Amino acid sequence: MSTVGNPANIFWHENPVGKAEREKLLNQHGCVVWITGLSGSGKSTLECSLGRELQSRGKLSYVLDGDNLRHGLNKNLGFSPESRTENIRRKKYNNREVAKLFADAGLICIASLISPYRKDGDAYRALLPDKKFIEASLMFIDLLSKSFALSNVHFLATFKVFMNMPLQLCEGRNPKGLYKLAREGKIKGFTGIDDPYEPPLSCEIEIQLKDGVVPTPNEMAGQVVSYMEDRDFLEA
Amino acid sequence: MSTVGNPANIFWHENPVGKAEREKLLNQHGCVVWITGLSGSGKSTLECSLGRELQSRGKLSYVLDGDNLRHGLNKNLGFSPESRTENIRRKKYNNREVAKLFADAGLICIASLISPYRKDGDAYRALLPDKKFIEASLMFIDLLSKSFALSNVHFLATFKVFMNMPLQLCEGRNPKGLYKLAREGKIKGFTGIDDPYEPPLSCEIEIQLKDGVVPTPNEMAGQVVSYMEDRDFLEA
Repeated sequence: MSTVGNPANIFWHENPVGKAEREKLLNQHGCVVWITGLSGSGKSTLECSLGRELQSRGKLSYVLDGDNLRHGLNKNLGFSPESRTENIRRKKYNNREVAKLFADAGLICIASLISPYRKDGDAYRALLPDKKFIEASLMFIDLLSKSFALSNVHFLATFKVFMNMPLQLCEGRNPKGLYKLAREGKIKGFTGIDDPYEPPLSCEIEIQLKDGVVPTPNEMAGQVVSYMEDRDFLEA
Repeated sequence: MSTVGNPANIFWHENPVGKAEREKLLNQHGCVVWITGLSGSGKSTLECSLGRELQSRGKLSYVLDGDNLRHGLNKNLGFSPESRTENIRRKKYNNREVAKLFADAGLICIASLISPYRKDGDAYRALLPDKKFIEASLMFIDLLSKSFALSNVHFLATFKVFMNMPLQLCEGRNPKGLYKLAREGKIKGFTGIDDPYEPPLSCEIEIQLKDGVVPTPNEMAGQVVSYMEDRDFLEA
């Protein structure tokens, strides 16, 4: 019997797999860990060590960085001043939106600011939901006993990690020779050198020197993991 | 002892977690399942049933669809004819690039064409790596004994699923009343009505009527899952 054209074949409202189910499968809660700080403050180091620590605990994370976005979503539009500004704006925006999707998929998405320039930082802040929103979200999540009943990508836990390292330390590391170029005036508007660094107004986690000593990559990762563990993000 | 400025604190080349490690954790291989077909051919139904079937087997998938992209990455630029064309181009491009990232993260990313318009289909095809590339990729993956040693987002397995359903059936379902509007001339250039539908030149999986009967959602999902299972994508 042909069922062509039979309305009984319509399944348009079948229920898709939700965030809570994916989280159950992964035994973790999807969220975003945003790492901010000066160039050379250890953002990439923390990305790696945090990813490693989570993997060793059987937790699925994904680092969103320049390398895996540069050739795709964030492919440059061109090199005119307008294109450069649009590239930067779009990068921040795209990274943020993709991070949201990963968190919705149930992953712990680790991301950091690529560019150390101040105006990019501003653009980035403008895209982040403000602290009040995050706090309200977390409170609401708490009310729901972390069930994340609403599988809504806009409703998302973000932990901001501020790498609060002294400029002197960052400059001593001189990643990609950038500080040297900035001191020589070959790069203009370099954050921390001829452009002031504005520490984030608020953050969930702050990585600092301890008695003047830089924490090891494992210690930094441990601090973030403990924070997440205390809030029951590492089980579902 | 202060270690500020101590080059020994540089860990820039620490090894990040790779695709193969994430796949081991998930016991599956990251890939993209692209579903194509006429409006009303059952793309959304397959998205849901495939996601459900994979979830029931403990496999992590994520459906990339209009709902989770519309408010973020694919937010409309505007409503001028140029903006509309740019919106469509960007949507296809973004979906493709985000799907790549999800596959790199180890997930089975399920996606379908949102728009039924022919020109969008063309734009979409232009972004997909050609069959030869996919075949070469799969061969190379095979050579590596599915180790996916190169964690390269550009190197990615894509399974195209063609919902080969008769126009009469799709029109009978009349999703969102679109066919009716097209027949009344209220929508112009609607694929299958006043714009010819071009079936994909090649696909890995074809969903068809069996003896004139529409396969159930579970049967359709089963066909895709069997294909993936036969190629050892559901274990790592």
